[in-house]
Amino acid sequence: MPTPRTLYRGKFLELLVAGNWEFVQRPRHTAPVGILAVTPDARLVLISQYRIPVGKICVEIPAGLAGDSGAPESWKAAALRELREETGYAAQDMEFLASGPTSAGLTNECMLFARAVGLTKAGPPQPDGDEQIAVHEIPLADVPAFLRDQEAQGRLIDPKIYTVLYFLLATGHWPLT
Amino acid sequence: MPTPRTLYRGKFLELLVAGNWEFVQRPRHTAPVGILAVTPDARLVLISQYRIPVGKICVEIPAGLAGDSGAPESWKAAALRELREETGYAAQDMEFLASGPTSAGLTNECMLFARAVGLTKAGPPQPDGDEQIAVHEIPLADVPAFLRDQEAQGRLIDPKIYTVLYFLLATGHWPLT
Repeated sequence: MPTPRTLYRGKFLELLVAGNWEFVQRPRHTAPVGILAVTPDARLVLISQYRIPVGKICVEIPAGLAGDSGAPESWKAAALRELREETGYAAQDMEFLASGPTSAGLTNECMLFARAVGLTKAGPPQPDGDEQIAVHEIPLADVPAFLRDQEAQGRLIDPKIYTVLYFLLATGHWPLT
Repeated sequence: MPTPRTLYRGKFLELLVAGNWEFVQRPRHTAPVGILAVTPDARLVLISQYRIPVGKICVEIPAGLAGDSGAPESWKAAALRELREETGYAAQDMEFLASGPTSAGLTNECMLFARAVGLTKAGPPQPDGDEQIAVHEIPLADVPAFLRDQEAQGRLIDPKIYTVLYFLLATGHWPLT
């Protein structure tokens, strides 16, 4: 395969081409981690925030970039930190679920999915200075209706919500019927 | 929100910045559609192909870009065409499942997910000239083991597989237990 060469290097993203195939990467090599977080009273913890690339509010699982602050960081440390910052929930541990490319034709970005173990409310969210994040705690049985309602309000639903719901279903934590 | 301006316009991808936020879009405005395809004898149809951005073989759901050939194309026509080209399966119809951003911090790309209805084997796959795609037809009960085995061989598992499996589980088409 041809060696990728840089077409443009921005501050956060780099556009490359290999042969005739263009793609983008994060030159800082930060990697996203997304979190399945269910409270002890069986509520799924979701967030919503305005996303500049799509120009709309998106409903998403809690997530963030490992190594975002510049220092090396394990996925587990990043997941615990991001969950605390974005939602105010602390977890005792993070369990690996899966990892894989978010859009393998477009970017080398791979996302790791983790399940928060031992969730407790630790305090208010502590967002970064420029983040405006709403937290939603939705009873599991109401999640499909909640997502339909959010979509009817013009919000975008991040499909990674369904990705983590698969693991909830497949592991028997959420019998839908 | 600040108006995005172009940092670099490639042939297939365009790097933009809005304020301090960099992101990428497809200037041709092609949109991906991914397909949940289950055969009448309860096998999930998956594909694998080498992906230049990640530098590895990825196991994925059948998918492609609507409008890829330059002419306008509905998501349904694109889904039927891509399924036929990549896997050799024809479907009577495509049922909308969901749509949403693939990586809302990185790109404005939104993917639509559809379920193939009335699947029949129509012939051999008809890949584009430069596509080398393997087709996998995995009995539903064996899918988790198949994915683990593929991963053990160094392949990447596209999380969109779990996304469509969620819909299979949630709609009662696949009782896991």
